[in-house]
Amino acid sequence: MVIVMEAGASDEQLAAVLSKIESFGLGSHVSRGEERTIVGLIGDERPFEDTAFEALGGVERVVRILHPAKLASRDFHPADRVIRFPNGAMLGGEHVLVMAGPCAVESAEQLRETAEAVAAHGVRVLRGGAFKPRTSPYSFQGLGEKGLALLRETADDLDMAVVTEVVSPQDVAIVADHADMLQIGARNMANYELLKVAGAAGKPVLLKRGLGSTIDELLQAAEYVLAHGNEHVAVCERGIRTFETATRFTLDINAVPVLKQLTSLPVVIDPSHATGHAPLVPAVARAGVAAGADGLLLEVHPRPAEALSDGAQSLTPAQLGTVVDEVGRIADVLGRRIA
Amino acid sequence: MVIVMEAGASDEQLAAVLSKIESFGLGSHVSRGEERTIVGLIGDERPFEDTAFEALGGVERVVRILHPAKLASRDFHPADRVIRFPNGAMLGGEHVLVMAGPCAVESAEQLRETAEAVAAHGVRVLRGGAFKPRTSPYSFQGLGEKGLALLRETADDLDMAVVTEVVSPQDVAIVADHADMLQIGARNMANYELLKVAGAAGKPVLLKRGLGSTIDELLQAAEYVLAHGNEHVAVCERGIRTFETATRFTLDINAVPVLKQLTSLPVVIDPSHATGHAPLVPAVARAGVAAGADGLLLEVHPRPAEALSDGAQSLTPAQLGTVVDEVGRIADVLGRRIA
Amino acid sequence: MVIVMEAGASDEQLAAVLSKIESFGLGSHVSRGEERTIVGLIGDERPFEDTAFEALGGVERVVRILHPAKLASRDFHPADRVIRFPNGAMLGGEHVLVMAGPCAVESAEQLRETAEAVAAHGVRVLRGGAFKPRTSPYSFQGLGEKGLALLRETADDLDMAVVTEVVSPQDVAIVADHADMLQIGARNMANYELLKVAGAAGKPVLLKRGLGSTIDELLQAAEYVLAHGNEHVAVCERGIRTFETATRFTLDINAVPVLKQLTSLPVVIDPSHATGHAPLVPAVARAGVAAGADGLLLEVHPRPAEALSDGAQSLTPAQLGTVVDEVGRIADVLGRRIA
Amino acid sequence: MVIVMEAGASDEQLAAVLSKIESFGLGSHVSRGEERTIVGLIGDERPFEDTAFEALGGVERVVRILHPAKLASRDFHPADRVIRFPNGAMLGGEHVLVMAGPCAVESAEQLRETAEAVAAHGVRVLRGGAFKPRTSPYSFQGLGEKGLALLRETADDLDMAVVTEVVSPQDVAIVADHADMLQIGARNMANYELLKVAGAAGKPVLLKRGLGSTIDELLQAAEYVLAHGNEHVAVCERGIRTFETATRFTLDINAVPVLKQLTSLPVVIDPSHATGHAPLVPAVARAGVAAGADGLLLEVHPRPAEALSDGAQSLTPAQLGTVVDEVGRIADVLGRRIA
Repeated sequence: MVIVMEAGASDEQLAAVLSKIESFGLGSHVSRGEERTIVGLIGDERPFEDTAFEALGGVERVVRILHPAKLASRDFHPADRVIRFPNGAMLGGEHVLVMAGPCAVESAEQLRETAEAVAAHGVRVLRGGAFKPRTSPYSFQGLGEKGLALLRETADDLDMAVVTEVVSPQDVAIVADHADMLQIGARNMANYELLKVAGAAGKPVLLKRGLGSTIDELLQAAEYVLAHGNEHVAVCERGIRTFETATRFTLDINAVPVLKQLTSLPVVIDPSHATGHAPLVPAVARAGVAAGADGLLLEVHPRPAEALSDGAQSLTPAQLGTVVDEVGRIADVLGRRIA
Repeated sequence: MVIVMEAGASDEQLAAVLSKIESFGLGSHVSRGEERTIVGLIGDERPFEDTAFEALGGVERVVRILHPAKLASRDFHPADRVIRFPNGAMLGGEHVLVMAGPCAVESAEQLRETAEAVAAHGVRVLRGGAFKPRTSPYSFQGLGEKGLALLRETADDLDMAVVTEVVSPQDVAIVADHADMLQIGARNMANYELLKVAGAAGKPVLLKRGLGSTIDELLQAAEYVLAHGNEHVAVCERGIRTFETATRFTLDINAVPVLKQLTSLPVVIDPSHATGHAPLVPAVARAGVAAGADGLLLEVHPRPAEALSDGAQSLTPAQLGTVVDEVGRIADVLGRRIA
Repeated sequence: MVIVMEAGASDEQLAAVLSKIESFGLGSHVSRGEERTIVGLIGDERPFEDTAFEALGGVERVVRILHPAKLASRDFHPADRVIRFPNGAMLGGEHVLVMAGPCAVESAEQLRETAEAVAAHGVRVLRGGAFKPRTSPYSFQGLGEKGLALLRETADDLDMAVVTEVVSPQDVAIVADHADMLQIGARNMANYELLKVAGAAGKPVLLKRGLGSTIDELLQAAEYVLAHGNEHVAVCERGIRTFETATRFTLDINAVPVLKQLTSLPVVIDPSHATGHAPLVPAVARAGVAAGADGLLLEVHPRPAEALSDGAQSLTPAQLGTVVDEVGRIADVLGRRIA
Repeated sequence: MVIVMEAGASDEQLAAVLSKIESFGLGSHVSRGEERTIVGLIGDERPFEDTAFEALGGVERVVRILHPAKLASRDFHPADRVIRFPNGAMLGGEHVLVMAGPCAVESAEQLRETAEAVAAHGVRVLRGGAFKPRTSPYSFQGLGEKGLALLRETADDLDMAVVTEVVSPQDVAIVADHADMLQIGARNMANYELLKVAGAAGKPVLLKRGLGSTIDELLQAAEYVLAHGNEHVAVCERGIRTFETATRFTLDINAVPVLKQLTSLPVVIDPSHATGHAPLVPAVARAGVAAGADGLLLEVHPRPAEALSDGAQSLTPAQLGTVVDEVGRIADVLGRRIA
């Protein structure tokens, strides 16, 4: 941490800053420039907040040097982390994992038809929502536990793994009973109570970036899960809020190489939510894999026009087949292959 | 809802759209322009999603006509809604309500000292966090239930009401036992499970806008609370995420008159979180009241430099006094007065 | 400037950084922390770019300490600067200046009718566009020189000053011949060729913030004008691009107190462009003055529905009267008065 | 265009809207819903602004149906447009064109060394800045005309084409004399005077998206060039301003397939400016080509640490070689090849 003093800061104000640093058990280093004096902290700044110093008199600005998420950082764990599913599918490392399925589980028939169709294209992880966070209270809210049971049964029949969203701490146990990976959605990325309980549930976690959250905040949210004893976390870029209205969100493609630098957790891309329009999904899926993503999360529906949610962004099984083929060949260019 | 067909849409595609509208029990109206055919829905479009139509072949775009939050809308409830606290303080209507206190409850002494200081400036609603949502898992997470008891006891002694945050559905009951108003923070605005439980708790709710959420989404989140039986909801603008880095967030001042048009729920401004820097708070607090806000939420600490959280944005009691005086005189210009 | 070295940076890499600093004639100060080494520059960092160091091996990050706009800074010129118009109107200091008029000069009659109406409310500076930057090439592009002559003549008859936009370096001379203040629009804030020529024209400049520009970049754009010999510059917040779509732009109200801290140049607010809707303009105008703005730029049209541009955001003269009255009384709360 | 009337709009207000539509020579179609009446325009709405109607009494909202840029639209010109350079290089169609070179022309030696190095990797279009728009007035502003002459001479010796930026209308002629393609930078995207002159200069134009500009505004800026007689325009996504600070800008990868849908103009990606950090450039370059971009604009410097501008984002020639190889193989997956 570097503390920049104001132009006219007094010696007493500087002394108060140094004394506060000392009270935290850290060392300091004062550098007097021509226009500003700056103070460097020596020691691990991570447990301390910027605001602890910003409130002191004579302090102009506080600059963090270390990324605050330690366990999630590549500094701490240099080697790529790999998440293994019970059926042998792997996320991270040399494989690029495609996870696909319907936005919401609507019925046994719809789920089975979709799952068989995606499995036919080699997809080994089935996604599908049983608990749905919906913007409007009047929208379809999901089948709940019944949906979980359908996911498990369908996946077992097809030797697939299941990833599905959990939206409330009290549902974590039941979701963990049925799923192989717990998804924390963008709207709950900073729902820290949920992160703590999910972190302790013993199942891998797929953590989506919040619509208005920075990459650093995403890693700090992952840190909540890691700090509660779970090292199997993947982070997912699913589009952020920007001023552009042609698409539902703006996929932050830069985030892929940035995350690969900062963390060794697997990085997943969700082109369906990031664009909101099925015709744009294949291009963005290809881009994600080309940028180095370890996995793709794709919405597929046998008849998108009949979907109870997110039909506009769902691929048909045939479109999924083309995407899987193209991203497989792009993965090959990068020395990886589709799992 | 207006559905814009693609330039080359076929008659069959148009028929499919009309048939889907009919299946929803709505009427339709076709208008053939020179370059595009558009279809207008007749009836209440609110229960239906755009995506139900966007996924149909030949559909270029879907435009909503009605704001999807019905109960929250001024169309539905034209008169300003007013929330009355047990001690007689009122939010909404002709009064401008100041709610102030520490970011976090740290100890009995800190809370009492702060509460007495803000009460001395006429503040009748005490804010303070017992359950704290923190970006880093290593930051102070609040005193929990002990903090709730301190808030209640301190407020009772000073004839103040209490507003405090709740971060998890299972805590709603205990927070509702101690507080007069439940705050839902920005990071939980779209935590719909929490909104549902809070909506059913029988206490007024102060709902903060998410950092990356639109005004429409804020109103839809309020709709969750209203639809679960609670009509005492206030909405709070506390800054959104933009590219500007000079301040922690960007207070969307336009949102104040926009919200006053769209809804009759009281509108509150939080200048402390919106700026992140105490020296900017008075100017933004004045701006909020001048723009027509019904309430202010302000962080105050007797010694900001010693605060365990958010010290940099906390006013001293003396600064609060100046703010109360100035916003009182601005309220007067608008024919209102400070409560 | 502080240079943060990577965790594993070598001694050679550090030496290369120090050698580069020395080649710029600056001193340095090395601070070795537990996880990172940081280097502080001693001397005036302003002429040097971050990227000069970011490209060196082993450098993780470069942090600027000083705001790069020196002449514009309050450090450099602590006292508030005041711009005096030939008719005695003043921008900055204890007065709050209202500048009003039509978006575009459409005809002699429209201009005179509007000017008389705004003058009747005490407005002493007439705004109006002769050269219009329009998003679409098919929109009305302004009357050009004829519009300038009308502005001058009308203003002279009513003892008003004229502020009008210039969009091209080759038009600066003719605009400076007719106007008392040259406006540089948001879309041209970073048109540095225009800034240089406008800076040398000898007339005060009203510089609007770009839609996607930070406060720092606004001050650096002002620095272009100041560095070309003109110290009469006012900066204008007119709304930035955010994800919110309820209004055309989002007025950054925080920017008002931030700018007042960083610079002694007068700060103006443009509620008409920031909102895009006349019913929202009065609330935002009041907010701007309450936040400490030195001036307001307002669009007024006698019959907004007939305006050739921006009718939706134009106040009627009667609405302007109410705004002038209210902001006058708010100015009074702050110890200022309407000019 | 669809005009949505307010809930309580009167018959007179509706009549005024219809009369205004008629005065524009357009037809109309009224659809009375249960809660709102909407009016559809029949005829070409493009020449008319939304605000012409928004200012009318009783109008709640105006929704455009057609994209306002007609000449740029794929509706108007369905087939992909291809730009041919004098040396035979082509932008658009089946080839993916790499344009590379230094950010700024610094000297004859630096330019030649860079140009030879990029040519050695098969690059046929040399980029380089002679007129530089710089955020700070104290930064290196480019070599101007001398830089243009160096670009031409160097390119001719290596059978390369030249693309270089023009920042002012009065420089268009001289730049057009030396360059094969005129670049309009992001900061000048809405400098309409420059677009008009560049449009009339008879050379292809590479138009970069403004940092705060939507895709629609980019197409309208292209429309300025097209409407002034030049159909050889390419549009370039170079990163937009968002709240994310880990990278200089956020490359809007969704914009690539969106632009390919909306327009038949070639689409270029600039990963150097979009990221600001050389280590991120290869991943984003690959992503752009995988998403369907027709060209890449890349900054290359033989010794980035010595560059006078943008060193941090410049690739070395060896890194360029890897990028060209990888994007060539990705292009091959999509049935295209590197030109």
